[in-house]
Amino acid sequence: MRYKLTIEYDGSNYCGMQKQKDSIKKSINGCLEVAIFKLSGEKPQIIACGRTDAGVHALGQVVHFDLNKEFSAFDLASALNHHLKKEKITILNSEIIDENFHARFSAKMRHYKYKIINRRANLALDRNFAHHVINDLDLEKMRQASQYLIGKHDFSAFRDADCQSKSPIKHIEKIEIIQNNQEIEIYISAISFLHHMVRTIVGTLILAGQSKIEPQEMKEILESKNRQKAGPNVPACGLYFLSCDY
Amino acid sequence: MRYKLTIEYDGSNYCGMQKQKDSIKKSINGCLEVAIFKLSGEKPQIIACGRTDAGVHALGQVVHFDLNKEFSAFDLASALNHHLKKEKITILNSEIIDENFHARFSAKMRHYKYKIINRRANLALDRNFAHHVINDLDLEKMRQASQYLIGKHDFSAFRDADCQSKSPIKHIEKIEIIQNNQEIEIYISAISFLHHMVRTIVGTLILAGQSKIEPQEMKEILESKNRQKAGPNVPACGLYFLSCDY
Repeated sequence: MRYKLTIEYDGSNYCGMQKQKDSIKKSINGCLEVAIFKLSGEKPQIIACGRTDAGVHALGQVVHFDLNKEFSAFDLASALNHHLKKEKITILNSEIIDENFHARFSAKMRHYKYKIINRRANLALDRNFAHHVINDLDLEKMRQASQYLIGKHDFSAFRDADCQSKSPIKHIEKIEIIQNNQEIEIYISAISFLHHMVRTIVGTLILAGQSKIEPQEMKEILESKNRQKAGPNVPACGLYFLSCDY
Repeated sequence: MRYKLTIEYDGSNYCGMQKQKDSIKKSINGCLEVAIFKLSGEKPQIIACGRTDAGVHALGQVVHFDLNKEFSAFDLASALNHHLKKEKITILNSEIIDENFHARFSAKMRHYKYKIINRRANLALDRNFAHHVINDLDLEKMRQASQYLIGKHDFSAFRDADCQSKSPIKHIEKIEIIQNNQEIEIYISAISFLHHMVRTIVGTLILAGQSKIEPQEMKEILESKNRQKAGPNVPACGLYFLSCDY
């Protein structure tokens, strides 16, 4: 039986979705494995839609795995949540799904959000949940700059050196920037992303918002295919894996 | 010189605004005292608008204190935030203010918010920032029940046994209940509150929302002046001190 789970987590105290040999922190995947083992006595491979880094949060991460034992979708979610109650990880939904479904390869569109708090004062409530930017951001410039990235491009300039993707060609469907007082949310959707692509795009949009680059320079950065030209990789704590369409 | 500060904090890991003899956790007030002493070498008495309990958050707590040394409002906020950078406490605004100003006694209206997540799954991201209610809440019944509390009443039924207020008569200006998917926010404004009054009101509104009491029973509970008749004191983690009008 193949099971699909939709998961929320506070990534602050985890080493990310995948286990990391050099980290003493637990991984999201590792916690799920323990909970599934406690419930079923089985140790299936867990495939995630997005391999979020340490500190990245999820409101709707999707995973799948196979179990020999049968559970109703409701019982599976309830029992796993019972075993996960000390973790900041929770199963929002579970489904019994066709064995052709693959959390990673069946994904048609991935949606991320990046949250910025733009103000002078340090963050207190949002310390682990947003990126703090002190200098005023010009949203209009950020929106202009973002438009050069929409569509199918070689995103080598926004790719981490460790990225294992076969191709740097990705297709960004949407970048939307919404402001609510000091809170700025950047919504980015694509079929798939390179490693650190969202955070490097946001880092470069912030440069545009602070007039350190002109909006049209985004086109040159993209075409340079040179990681040195793009902005910094902004902190993981502002990034949220929102959902995936299948 | 009298200084007024507007403060945000994540109350999760503090014992509340005031120092508590039996707590090993730091207080918000204690952290402010340390920061003020590091800056000025002085140990003024710090008066807060609202004495929030352990776990209660603030988006706009107000305090005042007097210093012999003079600082510009901007320098004071910057320097205190420097000394507070390891704490989840931040100065949003500082003002030099008339010596007749009193953070507690000059308050004309206090505004609180209580945040509920109404869903089956455990909380992950909001673990320390909202109250988890599993059973569906009927917002219309909660709104009806809330209306009996508006105005000037004896709120003894919603008063903690430890409350030190001289009178149980308080005047609730507004209760507004807003739903955004699974998130329910209850906004309550009054000139002042009794100890645990907001959390006990919310606990009783939840009973109405779960049809454990009828909305009109709120009137009987209020008139009984009997704490045993009202609902439970809901957890501190859902409560936010929003702001105060002077």
